[in-house]
Amino acid sequence: MTTSPSLTTPSARLGAGTPRLSLNRWSLRTTPLQEFLEATTARGIDAVGLWRQDIAEVGLDALRRRVDDAGLRVSSLCRGGFLTASVEADRAEALADNRRAIDETAALGAPTLVMVVGGITQEDKDLAAARARVTESIAMLAPYAKSAGVTLALEPMHPMFAADRAVLSTLGQALDVAEASGSDAVGVIVDTYHVWWDPALEQSIARAGAGGRLLSYQVCDWNLPLAADPLFSRGYMGDGFIDFPSITRMVTAAGYTGDIEVEIFNEDVWATPADESAKIIAERFEQLVLPHA
Amino acid sequence: MTTSPSLTTPSARLGAGTPRLSLNRWSLRTTPLQEFLEATTARGIDAVGLWRQDIAEVGLDALRRRVDDAGLRVSSLCRGGFLTASVEADRAEALADNRRAIDETAALGAPTLVMVVGGITQEDKDLAAARARVTESIAMLAPYAKSAGVTLALEPMHPMFAADRAVLSTLGQALDVAEASGSDAVGVIVDTYHVWWDPALEQSIARAGAGGRLLSYQVCDWNLPLAADPLFSRGYMGDGFIDFPSITRMVTAAGYTGDIEVEIFNEDVWATPADESAKIIAERFEQLVLPHA
Repeated sequence: MTTSPSLTTPSARLGAGTPRLSLNRWSLRTTPLQEFLEATTARGIDAVGLWRQDIAEVGLDALRRRVDDAGLRVSSLCRGGFLTASVEADRAEALADNRRAIDETAALGAPTLVMVVGGITQEDKDLAAARARVTESIAMLAPYAKSAGVTLALEPMHPMFAADRAVLSTLGQALDVAEASGSDAVGVIVDTYHVWWDPALEQSIARAGAGGRLLSYQVCDWNLPLAADPLFSRGYMGDGFIDFPSITRMVTAAGYTGDIEVEIFNEDVWATPADESAKIIAERFEQLVLPHA
Repeated sequence: MTTSPSLTTPSARLGAGTPRLSLNRWSLRTTPLQEFLEATTARGIDAVGLWRQDIAEVGLDALRRRVDDAGLRVSSLCRGGFLTASVEADRAEALADNRRAIDETAALGAPTLVMVVGGITQEDKDLAAARARVTESIAMLAPYAKSAGVTLALEPMHPMFAADRAVLSTLGQALDVAEASGSDAVGVIVDTYHVWWDPALEQSIARAGAGGRLLSYQVCDWNLPLAADPLFSRGYMGDGFIDFPSITRMVTAAGYTGDIEVEIFNEDVWATPADESAKIIAERFEQLVLPHA
């Protein structure tokens, strides 16, 4: 399959182009990969956030080629992490897999690998110990990332995922882990869905910026009622309760000038035709985020 | 309706009695009130946490009489709060309702009123402003509580409720609000379901204890997958992911010697006969909480 020449012709674009916007692959998860890349380019969006699932689907080299052919940049690769295992063999396997993910990030030309650090188990509920293992493992991975020219973006996740997905629950805590690595290759990602509620948000974003550790900014809304799977309650900006102008101003004040990824996991969005949801995403981004970035 | 004389006869008790345990009314929400009181006494539990709904059901005087007749104490009344309204008339009404709740708490002989402070709206997403209104309103209510001999226990709720229920999302933040009241009648409640994930939990519990503001301790587990209504994912201790020994030791180290309320909202528990769920609650409490209290 080759990309249509019209895709790189500005006159064929549906939108005038939206600076700063990167479209995360999972926002259009049910759209076939090539169609996703084409819908992105057609809308005048010039960056995408990709997943290791995309690599598994078409292969690393082919994925890089498709992205290049579409004239797109890769703003991040999702995801490394899952570093909380207490059994040594499991931990070694997780570290090896994270090194592969770092290599893949570099091969895609993406600056950063998003890290979802993992949760706890009912057999071992010691949160503090799990958090300490994450700190240690991140410090072990940092030199490898540094030499690959890739940064590790620690993602504090909403505390409702503390048991099953990520024991990093606040931006301040993620910064503690990043700083403990002793490496400038480790930083944090600010995802509005996960951190919007944090009373210390403004200070923590400023701290991330001041320390050169604000690596990525992802946006989507907090929709209520929560979806049956709370991962899927991420909404189009403006549909929920998040104050995007305020948070975007904090990120801007902290000096962030990079891509802003729209990452929506939502069954209704996934049921919408790709060009329509890409249009809504670009419009909401231009209304609620871009003026403050 | 009168209570059975057998209820005050120790030989009729099903359990040997469980010190420190208070059974929250909503743990057996579907059980008729009188049956709830009898199941509590029969199990050898000597305190209950009540709700304003119970007052609405039978009247304040009758409720006090029933509790006294059963030989029970009331460890807390739930709930005051909902103080985030920005319209002045709504706010005045909320303050008046909170004064009534304080009077009711005193009339029941309960030491503390649990405060669920309220959320934000899609029309006004300014979290910082909502939080400032809470701080101001709590300071306004504090003298009234003080003169009634009642404390106000600010409840930080899990961040997944920050939009629709409570803009107090961490124990540290609740302590900031309590201290800003300038009154020793304002403190905090530690509810494991809401705070278990907090990286600053140990420091914040210690701070609450040192400041004389640790007013109540409520326990239940964090069950996964989350229930359709995430309020109802509260489980019997031991069924989920919370490390009760660790958190109970923190509360104990902070000097807390009061009642420990078991407050479970769970459709399966509510479908269980009262005496059976009271038995499970007492057993789990004796296994996981009491040895560390």
